[in-house]
Amino acid sequence: MIERRERLLGPGNPLFYDDPVHLVRGEGVWLFDRDGKRYLDCYNNVPCVGHCHPAVVEALCRQAGLLNTHTRYLDEHILDYAERLLGKFDASLDRLILTCTGSEANDLALRIARFNTGGEGFICTNATYHGNTAAVYQLCSIFRPFEGYGEAVRMVPWPDSYRALNGLSGEALADAYADEVRNAIASFEANGIRLAGMMVCPIFANEGLPNVPPGYMAKAIGYVREAGGLYIADEVQSGFGRTGHWWGHAASGVVPDMLTLGKPMGGGHPIAGVVGRGDLIDTFRRSEMYFNTYAGNPVSCAVALAVLDVIEGEDLVGNAARVGQYVLRRFKELEVKHEIIGDVRGTGLFFGIDLVSDAKAKTPASAEARQIVNRMRHKGILMSKIGEHDNVLKLRPPLPFSEENADLLMTTLDEALAAL
Amino acid sequence: MIERRERLLGPGNPLFYDDPVHLVRGEGVWLFDRDGKRYLDCYNNVPCVGHCHPAVVEALCRQAGLLNTHTRYLDEHILDYAERLLGKFDASLDRLILTCTGSEANDLALRIARFNTGGEGFICTNATYHGNTAAVYQLCSIFRPFEGYGEAVRMVPWPDSYRALNGLSGEALADAYADEVRNAIASFEANGIRLAGMMVCPIFANEGLPNVPPGYMAKAIGYVREAGGLYIADEVQSGFGRTGHWWGHAASGVVPDMLTLGKPMGGGHPIAGVVGRGDLIDTFRRSEMYFNTYAGNPVSCAVALAVLDVIEGEDLVGNAARVGQYVLRRFKELEVKHEIIGDVRGTGLFFGIDLVSDAKAKTPASAEARQIVNRMRHKGILMSKIGEHDNVLKLRPPLPFSEENADLLMTTLDEALAAL
Repeated sequence: MIERRERLLGPGNPLFYDDPVHLVRGEGVWLFDRDGKRYLDCYNNVPCVGHCHPAVVEALCRQAGLLNTHTRYLDEHILDYAERLLGKFDASLDRLILTCTGSEANDLALRIARFNTGGEGFICTNATYHGNTAAVYQLCSIFRPFEGYGEAVRMVPWPDSYRALNGLSGEALADAYADEVRNAIASFEANGIRLAGMMVCPIFANEGLPNVPPGYMAKAIGYVREAGGLYIADEVQSGFGRTGHWWGHAASGVVPDMLTLGKPMGGGHPIAGVVGRGDLIDTFRRSEMYFNTYAGNPVSCAVALAVLDVIEGEDLVGNAARVGQYVLRRFKELEVKHEIIGDVRGTGLFFGIDLVSDAKAKTPASAEARQIVNRMRHKGILMSKIGEHDNVLKLRPPLPFSEENADLLMTTLDEALAAL
Repeated sequence: MIERRERLLGPGNPLFYDDPVHLVRGEGVWLFDRDGKRYLDCYNNVPCVGHCHPAVVEALCRQAGLLNTHTRYLDEHILDYAERLLGKFDASLDRLILTCTGSEANDLALRIARFNTGGEGFICTNATYHGNTAAVYQLCSIFRPFEGYGEAVRMVPWPDSYRALNGLSGEALADAYADEVRNAIASFEANGIRLAGMMVCPIFANEGLPNVPPGYMAKAIGYVREAGGLYIADEVQSGFGRTGHWWGHAASGVVPDMLTLGKPMGGGHPIAGVVGRGDLIDTFRRSEMYFNTYAGNPVSCAVALAVLDVIEGEDLVGNAARVGQYVLRRFKELEVKHEIIGDVRGTGLFFGIDLVSDAKAKTPASAEARQIVNRMRHKGILMSKIGEHDNVLKLRPPLPFSEENADLLMTTLDEALAAL
């Protein structure tokens, strides 16, 4: 099957695990392979309401059997969805443009920022990924694109709470990091490049989920805005309850000028979008043609509405907060027990476990992280790894994850760590 | 409802017709509004197998209820689909990369061409649209992006078979147009810009469906390849039987180096992709990370497989060729009867009717085209208009369109034209 993949799809299509999993069925937090083996899904955020949630599948099938067109005809689904979704943000964020993918949403948000500011330059972090279009790849610091980076990009160190610079902490650390943003702005100015904005995931999901130094975001974004730039929060990973709040930016205390949504938005169905301030969106839309054939179609919107219904009906935001606290506590117990765990970080149901081969030197234990992820897969738990050094265990289960699920995860992870 | 759209989605969201249609149900070639009024769909190519085809809906629902993940786990749907799809192309086109939208596919194809050629410059026509990402917008000649066009783009006149330059025809006309491509290449060379390729819809769908002068494509692409560039056929509109062949490039006699697919691929479900030569795709994939969360997921591939099943099972390619011939003959009858019809063009089930206010001067009758489209909507026929002057009636019904459907279209269009 891997040979067939290479022959039809070409090389380099990423596959999880040294021994890849062939899945055939999903239900709630569970996945099943073709031999009937059951896996606890501790990785997938797209099926945020659980795999194949009956209410989502039902909405999909009902609407797909009735009508599936595009937004050049009138339809209520997109309006009902926009109204409900926008109601969950600060009142300043009052417009929605739907796309099909998070990459399309980020590509569009960059254009809207450039249009409104007249600027070119964007700031991102030095260990991030925002999507796969040519324009968005310019902000991809974890995979260098063959085009190289243009002069309109500056990458600033992500606010690493664990391997902090110069032993700083608290406000001093926040200042040190925020100063990097100020330096990036100064560097743009020195090169005659006008700032358009900063795009950042408000929980630094790709960077490895640091506990962001308090005040960092407000200070960094303060500098950006002072220089005429916009704050675009990439909420493709952090949105829809993942953090125990509806949105990842909630905890940072800074309301973005625009934010982008994706992955969990349709529970697996391709729907994504840009939410933004009316003044920014409207001036753009008045001047520029933007149409997306599939985006906002009745089926996508019916599915996205069902996802909202389930998140609210099953209080999945509350569950992410409650069970997230429980999981974090249990991880901290493992941290005490296993020296290889250097740091445990997380928010809601999104966790990073930083493995180190030397606790003092905080040497990233990348090989061991890989071993653990592969062992867990054989023990029936699906998870992955992230971070600048690929040594951070990444856990991000569907939101209906329970304490019982967490207990199974802990027992299994405890065994896998003990067997290292 | 229009006010609600503006308030939630911003201004400038395109809507069809002066009196927009509020659709609630679709079935085959028919659409129904909320008052139960029935419309013959003579416009939509996305539901190529007909609206809400039961076999497509069934495949969607079955797979959505079983499993919907991503390609980092093994799954047979994507492989079965790739095998069947690639079997429908020249043997040189042996790799598939799936995306979610045609825009993503075109964005990716441009990157792959740049990577493989080491070039930057692209040629497109002067009346086209290839999608909505920042990179693809650089090739959009019908809506000028606010960024302007970079120096790596040259737009050549589209091969206008009706308003031909200098009264040329046949080979001489083909040469005149192909020379424009040669000039564009020379202009790149003169400016030190290396050619990456030419992106073109093989049936010039956005340009107004000209009867392309014989030999034009072979000559133009010959120049492109001689200069080290690649031919990317944008088959987002022309693919999947629309032309009475499986692919739009079939009639041109030139096999592309890459081609992009979209709109009808999933009958409304967001799935799209790049098909290309193995050498081009593989060198790119070996060097560059490309992952697309939703693309190639089991649900999308199950749907796309069902679309192929229906196209084959109902011989929709043959139907497009046969009924297409019939429709074209009937349009030619109307052309004789109504002086406003300057030219009737088409291929398979895709037609352009060029309206002129002065038959000799071929003056585009843009206002009348708008009137006709709006009148037809009130008479229960949905169609649109295109072209450099927005005066070309655009007809592109779902592929199960029958002679009986065509007869209704003709009678109604005859009445609308008579009432002008």
